[in-house]
This record gives sequence, C-alpha cells and structure tokens, in this order.
Amino acid sequence: MKIIAISGSLRKNSFNTGLIRSAIELKQGSIDIEYFDIKDIPLYNSDIDGENKPQSVLELSEKVSEADGILIAVPEYNYSFTAALKNAFDWLSRVTPMPLLGKPLAMMGASYGMSGSMRAQLQFRQVVIFMDMRVMNKPEVMIPSAYDKFDKEGNLIDEHTKEHLKKMLISFEKFIENNKH
Amino acid sequence: MKIIAISGSLRKNSFNTGLIRSAIELKQGSIDIEYFDIKDIPLYNSDIDGENKPQSVLELSEKVSEADGILIAVPEYNYSFTAALKNAFDWLSRVTPMPLLGKPLAMMGASYGMSGSMRAQLQFRQVVIFMDMRVMNKPEVMIPSAYDKFDKEGNLIDEHTKEHLKKMLISFEKFIENNKH
Amino acid sequence: MKIIAISGSLRKNSFNTGLIRSAIELKQGSIDIEYFDIKDIPLYNSDIDGENKPQSVLELSEKVSEADGILIAVPEYNYSFTAALKNAFDWLSRVTPMPLLGKPLAMMGASYGMSGSMRAQLQFRQVVIFMDMRVMNKPEVMIPSAYDKFDKEGNLIDEHTKEHLKKMLISFEKFIENNKH
Amino acid sequence: MKIIAISGSLRKNSFNTGLIRSAIELKQGSIDIEYFDIKDIPLYNSDIDGENKPQSVLELSEKVSEADGILIAVPEYNYSFTAALKNAFDWLSRVTPMPLLGKPLAMMGASYGMSGSMRAQLQFRQVVIFMDMRVMNKPEVMIPSAYDKFDKEGNLIDEHTKEHLKKMLISFEKFIENNKH
Repeated sequence: MKIIAISGSLRKNSFNTGLIRSAIELKQGSIDIEYFDIKDIPLYNSDIDGENKPQSVLELSEKVSEADGILIAVPEYNYSFTAALKNAFDWLSRVTPMPLLGKPLAMMGASYGMSGSMRAQLQFRQVVIFMDMRVMNKPEVMIPSAYDKFDKEGNLIDEHTKEHLKKMLISFEKFIENNKH
Repeated sequence: MKIIAISGSLRKNSFNTGLIRSAIELKQGSIDIEYFDIKDIPLYNSDIDGENKPQSVLELSEKVSEADGILIAVPEYNYSFTAALKNAFDWLSRVTPMPLLGKPLAMMGASYGMSGSMRAQLQFRQVVIFMDMRVMNKPEVMIPSAYDKFDKEGNLIDEHTKEHLKKMLISFEKFIENNKH
Repeated sequence: MKIIAISGSLRKNSFNTGLIRSAIELKQGSIDIEYFDIKDIPLYNSDIDGENKPQSVLELSEKVSEADGILIAVPEYNYSFTAALKNAFDWLSRVTPMPLLGKPLAMMGASYGMSGSMRAQLQFRQVVIFMDMRVMNKPEVMIPSAYDKFDKEGNLIDEHTKEHLKKMLISFEKFIENNKH
Repeated sequence: MKIIAISGSLRKNSFNTGLIRSAIELKQGSIDIEYFDIKDIPLYNSDIDGENKPQSVLELSEKVSEADGILIAVPEYNYSFTAALKNAFDWLSRVTPMPLLGKPLAMMGASYGMSGSMRAQLQFRQVVIFMDMRVMNKPEVMIPSAYDKFDKEGNLIDEHTKEHLKKMLISFEKFIENNKH
C-alpha cells in the first residue's frame, strides 16, 4: 500500500516533517510511505498555470495519482494551516484528471502551544471537501508542547507519541482498504 | 487616513485585485488606499527568516506599520483563502514589533460560484485572532457570479457592486476612527 | 436501505423540513426515508441525563441505531446550525453504545439569503468528527433564495432543485453501500 | 460597568458555570457581573416567536440591553458550542431592537480534554458576526484538564487560572471602554 507524505513546513528541523520521518521508520503493516518535499512548488498563479505546469507540481501530481492514500503533517501558523501546504493542494486541484479526487487522507500535527495543530487540521478539512477526499477521523494525532517530544533536529523521541503514531498508521491502512470500491 | 491593500490573487486579471483597483478609484471620505503586490514574497520558511528577512517582506511590513488599516481581497480556492494571502500574513506575524497587531482589517471577495468567497473570509478571521486584529463585520462584501460583474481584465463594471463597495469604504473609515485609542 | 431524517427547524412551515418531505416523496433507488421530529427533545443537561434518558431521545436513538444512514436538513441561524439540531446530536452522543458511530451522513439546507446554509453545514461537519461519522461530500445541497423555490407551507416546488435532490439521494445510496464493511 | 454573564452549560456543577462564579468573586476594576441562568429558555421555534416571546427571553433581552458587555462561558460538546448557548443567542437575535448589536463579548471555557473549549469558542465567533458583536481577542481563556482545577461542585480552585481570569476581566473592562463611541 503506497502512501505519499507531505509536510506543511519547509524548515529543515521541523517537528512536523519529523513526524513524517518517524512514520516512515515505524512502518506498520503493508504501508509504504514516501516523503515528497514541496519546497520547490511556486506560489500558485493561474497566469503560470495551464499546459505547462511547474515540474515540481507534475512530479507531486504523479506521486499522488499512484498513491493509495495521502498523509499530511499540518503545522499550525496563526491558528491555521501553512501557505506551503495549501499551495500544494491548490496546484493539485488544477491538474486534470484531479489526482486528489476521492483519495483517503490522514492528518497529523505538532505544535509548541496547547493546540497540537488542532485548529490547522480542522480548517484544512474544509479545503478537501470539493476534492471529495476521505479524511480519516480517528485516531487524531495532535501533539501539543512539541519541544518536549522532539530533539533539536526535529526527530520524534517520545515513545508514547510513537505508539500513538503506530495506531494511526494501522488505522489508516484499514481506512484505505475500506475506501477501495 | 492611510489604507494598505493586499490581494490574495497573483494573477494579472484577477477579479479580486480588480476589487482593490475599484476601491482605489471610488476613493471615499478621507481614505487613501495604496495597493501592495505580494507576488515577490517567497513561501515562508523559518530557515530563511531571522535578521535578514526578504526585501519584499520588509517593504510590506513598513507599509503596514504606517497604515491606519488593512484592506484585503480574499479569493476563494478550494473553500478557503489562498496560500499567497496566508503567506504574507505569516511573514508579517514574524516581524518585531508585529505590524499587524491591533490593526483594523476589512475584507472583500469575489468568486465564480455562489459563495462570494464567504468560506475563505470566514476562515481568514481565525488567522488574525492572535494578531488581535479588529475585523470589521459589516457591510460584508461577498460577490458571487463574478463573471457577470467584471470585464475580462478584472475591472469591476457592475454599478450595484460599486455602490456596495462605497458603503464598505465609508464604514471602514468610521470603524478605523472608532478603533483609535 | 433505511434512512432516518432529522430537520434542524422546529417550525411547521419550515423550508428545511420541506426538503425532507420532498426527499421522502422523490424516493430514489432502494432508499426508504423516515422523518423523526425532534421538537420534544429537551435541552441537554447532564443532570437529567443518566440511566433514565428522555423518551424522545431513546426513540430517536433506536431509530438511528437501526438506520443505514442519517439525512439532516440544516437551517442556518446566525451563520451556524440551529440549537435544536445540535441538541439532538449531543443527546445521541451520550447514548451507549453510541448510535451515530461511523454512520453515513448526508446534509442539505435552504436559506432566505445567499448562503444556502453553507456556513451551517460547514460548521456541523466539525460536530460529527468525534462520532466518526462519514459525511458525504457531493453533491452538496445548498439552496439560496428559498422563498422562490418553496410554497408558503414549506413544500419544495422548484423542479430543478427536485432533480438535484434526486441526485443527492442516489449518491447517498451508493455512499452508504460503499461505507458498509 | 455592567456585565451580563451566560453559561452554555445547564448542569448544576458545571466547570463553565463555575468560571462565571469565580469571575463574579474576583470582581476586578469597575466591573459588576450579573449571572443569568438560561435553563428556562425553550428551544427556538418561530411558531412560538412573535409578539409574545417567552418571559425568560424577554428578561434576558432586557438584561443584555442594559449591559455594557456580555461574558459567556462556552462549554465544548462534540467539538462545538452547546445547544443551550446557541439557542439563547438565536432568541436574542430575534428581538427588536436587537440587544446584542455591537455589544462587546468576552469568552472563556474549560474542558476535560486538551482543547480547553478552543474549538467551541472559535466556532461561536462565527455566530456573532451578523450581530456585529465585538469579540475580545486577548487574553484567551481556554482551560484544559479542568478536573484538576475545579472541585466537585464546579468551583475554580486553581490559583494560576484565577490570576488569568483576573487579567481577562481587566482587559475586558478596557476593551469595553475602547468600544464606546
């Protein structure tokens, strides 16, 4: 089962990108996760959209098309998702046929504060309605006080959180299976 | 009264950028609106943030600091605001002292569909809570079926909508006045 | 296929309750819709909750348990869902085993204004996450300017809207089928 | 300065109602807080609305009209505000002249879980836009793990939280002053 993973943070030592590395290492069941770095995707502008989309968008689009599900790490900036994450999805929504259509989606996030990126994840659910994505509801992965659970390179070092991540991955495998029709 | 205006769309013939041009032309009361193009602001990455912020961010930050209020045109992509708009605000939220803090904000938006950018504007309200911005509630400017009200260059040609814009500007002038303490 | 339908409006000539009557009459595929009137459910108070729940709650709970899916009509009061609708779901969320858990949900709504109850429906999606409900994304049924499409008794008289309702019901039948595991 | 306080919970030992009792006891500055119990307000139904509104609605409406600001305690049920709270505001929105129009509003909330009623408070902001209420942004009062901070009768016993409440009240006094025009 192929999963493509996207982090909404572009910084090197991001906690949220670290969550994806951890998910890759924790490799549960038949899930095979590939990380795609969205840092080269330019800000969407329909003047540069059209027949010649940016190479980075085409690459991501192909990965997404081939994937059975999408896993996103959702940092919270100013009570919402990041521009980088929204931007990647906006580009993908302009590709024909639309690669996100009906795809299973799992979200996870970490934050310094108490929200655990809760606000960002809740707003992002609205973004994928038109794409008819199937958002997994449970278990939610919202990690507050991230400074205690990651090292300085953004690697997840908290065992309890790793166990929670494992549960999420196992649920996502089943969720994807159930959404195949 | 100085207003800085930002459009969440980067495309040349955007309806939403057209709304700003129209607001500038309709010039009501003592309001003097200056448009700032955010197309050169790179996607936020804390690795490139720090003492040497991008020139475009510093310029916008200075304009915002000097302004009495902010007027934003909020396009709706995938039921939410655009990455470009969120990105500009995320950068501004990282400047010290924070130029958006406590500033009056007015929103307007146009869309092809029925929402008139309603969904994007409602989600954007959440973004500015931490910045303690004062969002004007009324009159709302949410323009559905925009293809009927703008020409191909994105110029507003609908007289009824122009009258509504005028009312919004007059209200914003008063709103700013009332928020000066 | 058994569907239980709930209207968020308590008034007799409600457009939204009219949508449910119309859905019952339009009876598509194998869908059999039963309407449940929530007017007798008291405001939730955990002091009156416990082993002896109100009879109206127990009745609704049993209907929901037996149903293959839930259809709700979502009026919009003050940019959100009604208290009556939220109240019914809050009560149901306190029944063990929780009858809403994992159930397919379809939403529809009509409004006097331009929103077509869009804002209410979007907020209600957040309410059912913890219940792990499966919310159908498409087609959305958001009917603005309802005064033109319903008669004074709240009966849907607009043929175009009826066709749209039919499509929703056919999609819901398939959606329920796909969510049976 | 007169404040009317409403709790979204109807249960006797509610943490959220306890927050209001605590705010009344902590009495800061010139603020005089009166609690109004909304338990007798029936579920809104426009068939029983009209010239003869329920006595409880008329009483609340008069209290609100005379108040300089509104303080609400916002419990979170199923990731959103309670029916009881929404119901009170929906009734008030139908009174002419509308007593909530332009009034300053402060929110606070406590929850068992990690959210501190964050999700409920954020959704409630959308409810009061049309009423043009002025929602205070800071300091936010969102109290997670409430079982540690309240006794069994719902009385706030945590000193740190009391200090935070005091700050909120002092800010609200100033906020109300600044919103008088």
